[in-house]
Amino acid sequence: MIHLHHCISARSFRPLWMLEELGLPYELVLHDFPPRVHDEAFLAINPLGTVPAFLDGEVRMTESAAICQYLAARHPEAGLDVASQDPAYGDYLNFLHFGEATLTFPQTLVLRYGQFEPPERRLPQVVEDYSRWFLSRLRSLEPRLETRRWLCAERFTAADVSVGYALLLASHLGLDERFKPSVRDYWARLQAREAFRRALEAQHAAAVTQGVSPTAAMALR
Amino acid sequence: MIHLHHCISARSFRPLWMLEELGLPYELVLHDFPPRVHDEAFLAINPLGTVPAFLDGEVRMTESAAICQYLAARHPEAGLDVASQDPAYGDYLNFLHFGEATLTFPQTLVLRYGQFEPPERRLPQVVEDYSRWFLSRLRSLEPRLETRRWLCAERFTAADVSVGYALLLASHLGLDERFKPSVRDYWARLQAREAFRRALEAQHAAAVTQGVSPTAAMALR
Repeated sequence: MIHLHHCISARSFRPLWMLEELGLPYELVLHDFPPRVHDEAFLAINPLGTVPAFLDGEVRMTESAAICQYLAARHPEAGLDVASQDPAYGDYLNFLHFGEATLTFPQTLVLRYGQFEPPERRLPQVVEDYSRWFLSRLRSLEPRLETRRWLCAERFTAADVSVGYALLLASHLGLDERFKPSVRDYWARLQAREAFRRALEAQHAAAVTQGVSPTAAMALR
Repeated sequence: MIHLHHCISARSFRPLWMLEELGLPYELVLHDFPPRVHDEAFLAINPLGTVPAFLDGEVRMTESAAICQYLAARHPEAGLDVASQDPAYGDYLNFLHFGEATLTFPQTLVLRYGQFEPPERRLPQVVEDYSRWFLSRLRSLEPRLETRRWLCAERFTAADVSVGYALLLASHLGLDERFKPSVRDYWARLQAREAFRRALEAQHAAAVTQGVSPTAAMALR
């Protein structure tokens, strides 16, 4: 049985969404954010103290976009993977990484220095620098999404989960008001997926059952 | 013929190193850093204005760790890839992403707010926050490297190129003085590889031929 350690709306939402897309059984373990502060025992599971921590038999993973690719590749019948011989393979890998390294990390700076740090350590300059950074990188998706429903391979893949999470985070930060129409429509298509809705419901239900506050805990690590 | 757009010691060093590991023919196009400032024509090749820009026939990629995985998977005979059925597949994907999203991005903040921004915009707090952040995440590699020569699959793979570049960047920033012995020895093993040395020579030779200043242009994007 797969175990996924998760905080509400943190990066671990990516593998949660993937598990729902694939219809796999899993146990969701919810933590208050940040888990390394609230639960020292968690460091025995993931010495980084971050979520996700993903356990599948002997496999231990901590990078959310990597887990998406892992799950897609281990369940190719679902069509969320792109095979290495496929002409879209380069796009697929590129968007898997782009969703995290290019679109998510800058937003964690906006969160950290805009919301999470105590007032005397907040840095409006960094919030402004990396809000602009995120929006300028996001712009590169627009021409592609004007003519395509999904990012690559003419179908929904794990790469859409990677980028989709970055848009979820942006919507929590209010940056979605600055989405251009093609990105806004793509974000609406992602939110309309049944597996996306089930993932939202699963984290809410787990928060209630496990006594974790369903507040806006976020992606900072 | 593969074309790789590169700045000295920037993230595009990862695909350059991979190309040398694989012994593939390629054309290296060197740019002054940052390319979007020095060469507006580059935006036609990569609208993000960042390096790497990697062109292989119809394939266009911009994420350095993704390019490493792409090259490894398209040339499996070289053994730098890990197949999806392999028990080490989860580790392989995790370290490919970890090298960039977790170990490289924090260092770009150290560079930006410590060196690249004009003096009035420098932020020592961010330099300190993300130097510590990098070193604490790096610590998670130590137990593994105490008993292994390479990160996963008991051989050198593209995952070592991804993490190895983060160590190269750390050495440019002087953070290598704080490496623990197991990481220091691993970094020495990486630097001793012939393909690593050939990649360093290739970027130097291209800088001379193409009239680009071989200074410490870096990984900020």
